Amino acid sequence: MTAPRTPGIAHGGDYHPEQWPEHVWDEDHRLFTLAGIDTLTVGVFAWSLTQPAEDTYDFTLLDRVLDRAAAEGRRACLGTGTAALPPWLARRHPEVNRTDFEGRRHRYGQRHNFCPSSPAYRDASAALASRLAERYADHPALLAWHINNEYGGACYCDLCADAFRGWLTERYQSLDALNDAWWTTFWSHRYTDWDQIEVPSALTEHWRGPDHTAFQGITLDYHRFTTDALLGCFLGEKEAIRAHDPDTPVTTNLMGLYRPVDYHRWAPHLDFASWDNYPPLDAPPTRAALGHDLVRGLKDGAPFWLMEQTPSTTACRDVNPLRRPGELRLATWQAIAHGADAALWFQLRASRGACEKYHGAVIGHAGRADTRVFREVAALGAELASLGGLTLGARTPARTALLFDWDSWWALETSDGPSRLVRYPDVVHAYYRAAREAGADVDVVPVTADLTRYEVVLAPVLHLFPDGLAERLEEVARRGGTVLATFLTARCDPYDRAFPADVPGPLAPLMGIRVDEWDARPADVAHPVDLGEVRADARLVFEIVLPRGAEPVGTYGADFYAGTPAVTRHRHGAGEGWYVATALDQPGVDHVVRRVLARHRLLGPYAAHPGIETAARVTPDGTRLLFVLNHHTAPARPPAHAAVTDLLTGRRHAAGEPLALDPLGVAVLRPQ
Amino acid sequence: MTAPRTPGIAHGGDYHPEQWPEHVWDEDHRLFTLAGIDTLTVGVFAWSLTQPAEDTYDFTLLDRVLDRAAAEGRRACLGTGTAALPPWLARRHPEVNRTDFEGRRHRYGQRHNFCPSSPAYRDASAALASRLAERYADHPALLAWHINNEYGGACYCDLCADAFRGWLTERYQSLDALNDAWWTTFWSHRYTDWDQIEVPSALTEHWRGPDHTAFQGITLDYHRFTTDALLGCFLGEKEAIRAHDPDTPVTTNLMGLYRPVDYHRWAPHLDFASWDNYPPLDAPPTRAALGHDLVRGLKDGAPFWLMEQTPSTTACRDVNPLRRPGELRLATWQAIAHGADAALWFQLRASRGACEKYHGAVIGHAGRADTRVFREVAALGAELASLGGLTLGARTPARTALLFDWDSWWALETSDGPSRLVRYPDVVHAYYRAAREAGADVDVVPVTADLTRYEVVLAPVLHLFPDGLAERLEEVARRGGTVLATFLTARCDPYDRAFPADVPGPLAPLMGIRVDEWDARPADVAHPVDLGEVRADARLVFEIVLPRGAEPVGTYGADFYAGTPAVTRHRHGAGEGWYVATALDQPGVDHVVRRVLARHRLLGPYAAHPGIETAARVTPDGTRLLFVLNHHTAPARPPAHAAVTDLLTGRRHAAGEPLALDPLGVAVLRPQ
Amino acid sequence: MTAPRTPGIAHGGDYHPEQWPEHVWDEDHRLFTLAGIDTLTVGVFAWSLTQPAEDTYDFTLLDRVLDRAAAEGRRACLGTGTAALPPWLARRHPEVNRTDFEGRRHRYGQRHNFCPSSPAYRDASAALASRLAERYADHPALLAWHINNEYGGACYCDLCADAFRGWLTERYQSLDALNDAWWTTFWSHRYTDWDQIEVPSALTEHWRGPDHTAFQGITLDYHRFTTDALLGCFLGEKEAIRAHDPDTPVTTNLMGLYRPVDYHRWAPHLDFASWDNYPPLDAPPTRAALGHDLVRGLKDGAPFWLMEQTPSTTACRDVNPLRRPGELRLATWQAIAHGADAALWFQLRASRGACEKYHGAVIGHAGRADTRVFREVAALGAELASLGGLTLGARTPARTALLFDWDSWWALETSDGPSRLVRYPDVVHAYYRAAREAGADVDVVPVTADLTRYEVVLAPVLHLFPDGLAERLEEVARRGGTVLATFLTARCDPYDRAFPADVPGPLAPLMGIRVDEWDARPADVAHPVDLGEVRADARLVFEIVLPRGAEPVGTYGADFYAGTPAVTRHRHGAGEGWYVATALDQPGVDHVVRRVLARHRLLGPYAAHPGIETAARVTPDGTRLLFVLNHHTAPARPPAHAAVTDLLTGRRHAAGEPLALDPLGVAVLRPQ
Repeated sequence: MTAPRTPGIAHGGDYHPEQWPEHVWDEDHRLFTLAGIDTLTVGVFAWSLTQPAEDTYDFTLLDRVLDRAAAEGRRACLGTGTAALPPWLARRHPEVNRTDFEGRRHRYGQRHNFCPSSPAYRDASAALASRLAERYADHPALLAWHINNEYGGACYCDLCADAFRGWLTERYQSLDALNDAWWTTFWSHRYTDWDQIEVPSALTEHWRGPDHTAFQGITLDYHRFTTDALLGCFLGEKEAIRAHDPDTPVTTNLMGLYRPVDYHRWAPHLDFASWDNYPPLDAPPTRAALGHDLVRGLKDGAPFWLMEQTPSTTACRDVNPLRRPGELRLATWQAIAHGADAALWFQLRASRGACEKYHGAVIGHAGRADTRVFREVAALGAELASLGGLTLGARTPARTALLFDWDSWWALETSDGPSRLVRYPDVVHAYYRAAREAGADVDVVPVTADLTRYEVVLAPVLHLFPDGLAERLEEVARRGGTVLATFLTARCDPYDRAFPADVPGPLAPLMGIRVDEWDARPADVAHPVDLGEVRADARLVFEIVLPRGAEPVGTYGADFYAGTPAVTRHRHGAGEGWYVATALDQPGVDHVVRRVLARHRLLGPYAAHPGIETAARVTPDGTRLLFVLNHHTAPARPPAHAAVTDLLTGRRHAAGEPLALDPLGVAVLRPQ
Repeated sequence: MTAPRTPGIAHGGDYHPEQWPEHVWDEDHRLFTLAGIDTLTVGVFAWSLTQPAEDTYDFTLLDRVLDRAAAEGRRACLGTGTAALPPWLARRHPEVNRTDFEGRRHRYGQRHNFCPSSPAYRDASAALASRLAERYADHPALLAWHINNEYGGACYCDLCADAFRGWLTERYQSLDALNDAWWTTFWSHRYTDWDQIEVPSALTEHWRGPDHTAFQGITLDYHRFTTDALLGCFLGEKEAIRAHDPDTPVTTNLMGLYRPVDYHRWAPHLDFASWDNYPPLDAPPTRAALGHDLVRGLKDGAPFWLMEQTPSTTACRDVNPLRRPGELRLATWQAIAHGADAALWFQLRASRGACEKYHGAVIGHAGRADTRVFREVAALGAELASLGGLTLGARTPARTALLFDWDSWWALETSDGPSRLVRYPDVVHAYYRAAREAGADVDVVPVTADLTRYEVVLAPVLHLFPDGLAERLEEVARRGGTVLATFLTARCDPYDRAFPADVPGPLAPLMGIRVDEWDARPADVAHPVDLGEVRADARLVFEIVLPRGAEPVGTYGADFYAGTPAVTRHRHGAGEGWYVATALDQPGVDHVVRRVLARHRLLGPYAAHPGIETAARVTPDGTRLLFVLNHHTAPARPPAHAAVTDLLTGRRHAAGEPLALDPLGVAVLRPQ
Repeated sequence: MTAPRTPGIAHGGDYHPEQWPEHVWDEDHRLFTLAGIDTLTVGVFAWSLTQPAEDTYDFTLLDRVLDRAAAEGRRACLGTGTAALPPWLARRHPEVNRTDFEGRRHRYGQRHNFCPSSPAYRDASAALASRLAERYADHPALLAWHINNEYGGACYCDLCADAFRGWLTERYQSLDALNDAWWTTFWSHRYTDWDQIEVPSALTEHWRGPDHTAFQGITLDYHRFTTDALLGCFLGEKEAIRAHDPDTPVTTNLMGLYRPVDYHRWAPHLDFASWDNYPPLDAPPTRAALGHDLVRGLKDGAPFWLMEQTPSTTACRDVNPLRRPGELRLATWQAIAHGADAALWFQLRASRGACEKYHGAVIGHAGRADTRVFREVAALGAELASLGGLTLGARTPARTALLFDWDSWWALETSDGPSRLVRYPDVVHAYYRAAREAGADVDVVPVTADLTRYEVVLAPVLHLFPDGLAERLEEVARRGGTVLATFLTARCDPYDRAFPADVPGPLAPLMGIRVDEWDARPADVAHPVDLGEVRADARLVFEIVLPRGAEPVGTYGADFYAGTPAVTRHRHGAGEGWYVATALDQPGVDHVVRRVLARHRLLGPYAAHPGIETAARVTPDGTRLLFVLNHHTAPARPPAHAAVTDLLTGRRHAAGEPLALDPLGVAVLRPQ
């Protein structure tokens, strides 16, 4: 089962016609045509209409919406709508409402408000999915199933506590094994009955919020349990759908670098991956790219769908800036460059009320086609249409892998010591950014991924280290590859127990070092690191490294460890193990990563052009397309790396001839 | 029914003799006489003494206090004392304690601690008021009834939930109307039974506190409901009083710019308005003035009572500075200049214990008359006495109105998007300040006010826009007036639904513009705005304006909207509509507002003298008094605007002759 | 009963062998020998092993641990282990779990998690202590009993509420007395039944957390009650031990400047004092020293035990820096210089799991002896051994006392007004630091201490002032001593009621001043104070002082009180009373304190050498040792103050000859 089949890059977005009278729908479809919109996500928040009471289903709305879509030649991702409960369900079965981290049972409100362990919720959501599949499996407009919406959050109720205990029983089989894994002898926590185990919350093991826990082991396992509990909800609906519809692809929209849910556990169960791209305020372009590459990595490099992005502003942030002119186009092409086969907006028409009424939309409150945003979306729609289906199914030919690991994320950010200031995604992003800005395509993959296809493997702050990974990384080096690890990598086993061995534990042989101790300083303290050609700043954590075979590549320039290694390189077989013992600033990370990439000739043709991003995709017929994205608000004229044709303009460029990239401009280059 | 009748400006304050043995009372009255104090607010926190048990009333204390006051020639505002529960009531009827926003039922403690929907509280408070009125209606010392104290806060208990549902049923009549108003189709919230509606709290629609709600509609309505629920408590007591005392004026002390309660809904039920003036730390003088003018606007410009202010320090803040020498006098005269007919202190004698023991008082812990504060109060008392009753009943001849609207306050500050950094009172104050510092008298009025008497109407960030207001504002312009609106004005109807129309909705014709989109930036980003003669900075929100008849008055100087209008003017009839599309800094607002006032010759005679405030009052006999307040700590010598007599010194000044104002000095000028 | 008898300074620390298989124990003892470790703290978190079920005790572990220790010639502080509940106890008796300040009953988790009023906890902990004492009273390894661990925190459950009411009944005898003490007439709080009293929490008298209370009186009493409730738990265990073991010294490890528990109330019940020294990040060395001197003051100057310190890093902070090379040695000698007779580490071997796995340890995860930390510990162990028992029992010959008072700490930091920014330990530390850096030995003592032995008494911010203290301080002055008080001293009686008198209340005669009022400003406002020879900055609180016999020593240089006294001196008998009316910066405090000390010739020989700390101890045989500590990271060569021998090097120095102190170096000087 793979992604839906479409003639070209799907273009459209979330559409909530139930909020308006039908005469507005006419106007909507007229504007959709103007904007080249062919794909609608519908039904995502319609539960209270499709099932207005426990025993009553009413498909009038969806019938009309889907029939209208089909009549106009559009297709739909049909939401099961189970992310937002109808009021009657919460009232009738109060246990479907979540109990929060503070131990408070909530009442009806908001969305993403269901207890994933509640039988009432699981039954009701699966029943609704079943009814929908029964009715619409063969509808001509049906393109894909969109189960629920942005799964996330956690519940701490008694039902979840019971389910957690069951999950633990299955995982550990015996209390001895559990006591050993969680290191419960510490602080007299040895459990003698499964019933003694409480969910880790503000009322039990936590203080100062979800990241401060007395026992990292139980907290880690609750993250895993929550991932599985939510997945269980998804699978309940998927199974209900499959009973009536064996073929239509099923997905749910993920959220990229979203800490609460380990998407690697979900990936096998998605027919295709899709995600909602809302990068942090003022983030560099590589932050969104990291999300794309992470989501592409879920399904072993298969194309994904960009299920949501805003055409202009968000609403939920303290400050919600506009996307500047050209940004929505550039962001969309970036998604496609990284593997998206669809470009969908949230949302097609702006809500009049509630908390997303100021969220950007293709069609604003006035319903106009002559707004800046509508014009840009329509122009992009035309451009996508002109490209046709060429990129569909194309894959990224990456030779660099970055290991991304939710377990390490959870462990690192719930660790007491050495520093609460180290944030997993920030360090990961720094290495990803360095590689991407150097022009390397990067696969962001789980620690279980097949590494035989990569020449460079980056393992930043991979705090938890599974069995066998060290051997697989050594094999990468043995055959000539380079493995890069950093401070706080390979510290603990998957139960967050420190290895009873020299740091970095199982990686020590490959890295050729021993870390004797580690200093930490507040964020305003920077130590210089001499990297030979450049001098960088380092912050937060400073591991003190004793070389055991490795040679220093960079040295600390301050404190009592001045002159000792901050970055090391160790020959191993035909390859190398690199260790970065501190949080270098971006120029420092750039320098180190470029040295590694250069060794493998993986620097891209525009590595010397800051702000020019490139990404390659190889189409099913073997054509290697190079996407060139100008993130500057000024024009750029980098020389063509080869004789190419720009598919967006039809222009041909000889090798070395300047490409003329507009501000925020894009080129899709095919070799001539 | 109007304010109490007094021979001059009432002078006195809160007095809690129940905290001391009676021999201290002797000393108190001796000091009151020294300080010219004639008015005592008593009984405000005496419930546990006047009703020591459910079936026991004991008026010994109040009898003595009132008899003593009468004997000494003083009069009293008699508090009903229902703002602070006695312990027995909370113990016997736990449901009188509030349930907070987090859903936690409180137990006995603090004050303002009663559930306004609780029958036990309503019954007990009305019964107490009834007993007091029965006993003291004819007491010679009785000057006014002071019901409860600083009403505020909200409760989220089940009694309130029931009452809220009843309130909603009355307001909407049908669930369809409610669903439509709250736009519940969004996020699947369509209610099918009134019982499904929960109070909007941290356990239901809110996250990150009271300002973040999934549904602005329900949260807005809960603010309105709370306003009405508290008003219901007030009315219950007032009715009980009126049964025994048809004549004595009734009030409660308000708190000026206090967000939780919409005082415009209360105004018709107050016989006279009164308030407690505790301006924010280091606020400019116009901040207190805005409070005075807002409270004066409650009763259509009738004089109000300054019910509380501190003679020296507050106690409840992190930092509690002293009022500098002269400040208590200046602040009192400012209140009078803006319409106060009374000047009362909190408090007359400092408490020895609990959380207000360090709150400033006329008489300190040592009971001395030779403190700086006592001397200043006594001097002021003498000065007030010397002025006599001249200012009583005088009214402010304002030709500028500022529309103040609690609905807009609530809506703006609970809005998701465009910016959480816009604070309603700050923007309102910026416009008020500009007008006041330019010397214009300003009426701060509700959106329902009669606008026919004004030449200039300011409508800053009036986010919610009621039916008919646009027409009334157009009428102002048609007859030659000027209407000024700002960014985020006229965005939504009273249910917080965005108008399905061009921004600024119903105001668009008067403003002659269309707002196409709006940018937001963090507080540290300033964009220059070219206003012709001056260049100002703008922050937070930047609306992009397409003129549709209006002419630009100022233009943005940065970002992709550089060169587009930031301020516009549109001729309409004989008048003008001005639109300010961004949050200008104070010099920018000053410039715009002065241009508007100049058009109507409303700049005051001291507009060019920063720090010199003027305010006019017209006495019942038609005398136009001009209060001149020197907010500098240096002397000032502005030229007299006309031939005048300073009533405080008796000095006469020819027009143009310098007034000699002391540091923080005051003059009350009568035309010769 | 005094401290345990040891041949020399005990060296060792917390040891949790139960976390590892026994083969690791072999390695542990080998390393202990290498490091000169002779003392183990064991059993502190072993409850779930020693009592795995309600009716089952199992001493296998402790038998082995103690037998092994004895066999290797080591001795043990045996923990009763009652600080961390076993899971079964929490499950079986849910009421042993605490209810927090927010009113939430917790479930099992963390440690320090027991309700001190719970009979189930008290019974179970005393029973366990009894069993342990019965079994190990005569064990050859037993050196001391270590009851519980770091007692602290508070509970707000109904059991505590009942116990609190009982405690109040005993304290006040009548509700009238209680109402009077708490000043309940304020805000209508007059209680008419003991049952009406609720515990002061977020659900009753508090807002914005534990420091904001409507009634300081109830909150103060709850701090006292909590101190007594926890003490009751300690005494329950101690009594159970004494039934079987009349002789072995009993202690519990305190936490120095730990606000929640008034250690002065505990002191009489400890056989010897011990504490855990974890100074704040980047604190100056005097901060740890203040802790030492406070703990030494608990037992009237008797030596104490340093029960815990980290050899390298903490784990629980946001940022956990390393102790630099030499710091663990210097910190240990500082403890000894201030009266420690033991030097114990937390911990001997690093935990593999849970929240302290990254806490520093003598033996790290790799179990190596060749780490920097192990080498430094071992070198120190050798050095301690070489010194032998010379310092045991030595006492500090201080002639300066600093009054430290938990009541004042609580009162000051829960006070509304004048400033929330004044922190009790910061002001106390400023005065302590000034005296210590000037070379004066300081006893930190309770307000009840015998003051006849002191020439200088410092009473900074002693907000609550007990009966009779003024007379005792006047007596100090009368006989020639100097008493120094500061702003916010002597404001209230022990019930936190402001004295109905001139400020500073009972101290006014000694100080010869009257404080008329007090200003407060934000932390970024500094006012200059002219101290004659130096000019200092003052912040936060500025009392306005009217001299009534005193002479000004320093004057304010800003605001309306410019030119008025900021520091005064008043002759009284043969001595003086000094008053510092504002929060001077450290140079200002230094100047004032040195003037006072100079008057009594109490400046130390190295007062002119910043960073060189000295501390004297007089051994039982009368030898006066001078510890000289170089807090610089550079060498220092101060001249010897007399002819001395350095006991650590054996070197002799003539008077005036330079001492050669290494960076962070130490000398222990004995007169020749």
